[in-house]
Amino acid sequence: MTIGIIGFDADDTLWHNETIFRLSHDRFVELLGNHADSDGLTARLEATERRNLRLYGYGIKGFTLSMIETALAVSDDALPPSVIAELLAIGRDMLEHPVEPLPGVVETLDTLVEAGHRLVLITKGDLLDQEQKIARSGLAERFSSIEIVSEKTAATYQRIFSRAGAGEGEAVMIGNSAVSDILPALTAGYWGLHIPYHVTWSHEVAEVPADAPRHRRLETIAEVPAVIDEIFGRRR
Amino acid sequence: MTIGIIGFDADDTLWHNETIFRLSHDRFVELLGNHADSDGLTARLEATERRNLRLYGYGIKGFTLSMIETALAVSDDALPPSVIAELLAIGRDMLEHPVEPLPGVVETLDTLVEAGHRLVLITKGDLLDQEQKIARSGLAERFSSIEIVSEKTAATYQRIFSRAGAGEGEAVMIGNSAVSDILPALTAGYWGLHIPYHVTWSHEVAEVPADAPRHRRLETIAEVPAVIDEIFGRRR
Repeated sequence: MTIGIIGFDADDTLWHNETIFRLSHDRFVELLGNHADSDGLTARLEATERRNLRLYGYGIKGFTLSMIETALAVSDDALPPSVIAELLAIGRDMLEHPVEPLPGVVETLDTLVEAGHRLVLITKGDLLDQEQKIARSGLAERFSSIEIVSEKTAATYQRIFSRAGAGEGEAVMIGNSAVSDILPALTAGYWGLHIPYHVTWSHEVAEVPADAPRHRRLETIAEVPAVIDEIFGRRR
Repeated sequence: MTIGIIGFDADDTLWHNETIFRLSHDRFVELLGNHADSDGLTARLEATERRNLRLYGYGIKGFTLSMIETALAVSDDALPPSVIAELLAIGRDMLEHPVEPLPGVVETLDTLVEAGHRLVLITKGDLLDQEQKIARSGLAERFSSIEIVSEKTAATYQRIFSRAGAGEGEAVMIGNSAVSDILPALTAGYWGLHIPYHVTWSHEVAEVPADAPRHRRLETIAEVPAVIDEIFGRRR
């Protein structure tokens, strides 16, 4: 069997992330509801997040700053300081949230490692936060390298996979986001296994063209080893 | 001449950084002076920053969150929301601050590259912010690799320099911080060239033992090429 280079996304592929952001959105709306028109609060927050992406990038610290900025904007100078303190607390809670692998993750990674494949973790977000989540997940030792990047573009996958020695069609990227994980990996000439998460960040909704070669859509991570066998050839 | 692996710190070694934090500290004190006892404001802010390091890591977003937290703590629930908006603006200004190489940096890097040495940029902080600073500095192409890390320990230098092929005594780290750049590089068995910046972050003050081997203290970055010649042997 050929040894494959297999990239895994982390947030919402190996562990929950978006649900934690959603819960924080809900806490934000609940908190601000007393001080502002609660209609459209979520949309206002998402618009602020989107506008600040260029400056803050992905991650919890930037999200916290965007919550504070939105709270100030919607409350017409009448915001009690205690609300700001609550928003800081929401951010801290997110940073300290326990990191538990999603069902099937540990078994799937173990199966792939045992079959001799090289796993690479490829994630975007705050450097320290991602490092701490990887450490707390207990999954780090299964990966031969860990890449924390600020954007996931075709060039990102090209750089990481070619450094790992994978030419066209010789690496597979696995993740929940069509925009970040699948489409750019396909563009760079690699495989993309799409495992949608039950909620998707509104900035990241996209469809993979039905006729894209080297693309599979899976229901759960447990299906990965069989598809990898199919791609790289069965063990004999 | 032997080709050397030469690591450079970025903030306060290649361009100003701490002065920008100091100016922001001053803006913070000025802004809060009307709403709280201004005595000890700087110390309060620094204590908050230090306490949050574990959670936020290094960088401007975490600093902005620490400013807001301190402002709330010192103002006894009487803080106008406009002050919080000002603190957000200070953070944004820092993130957008122009990045200009310090005097002698461009010439020194060019001389080293021309002599065939391999330069590695090793910096800690927010991933996106550091990437943007490196891009805006115009210096990126002079480095054969760029490493953005969350902490600079002996293990960090060991990993980066050994991957670049440098054994004991075969790489040099250059930076302004004894704590982050010099002491851990010396511990890992490499050289350390210390170029103090005119202000040092209070968390990072330390002395390098006078008898440390493989250590030099320089006044300016312009002295680097001569010391590198001495370490790796003159071109013949």
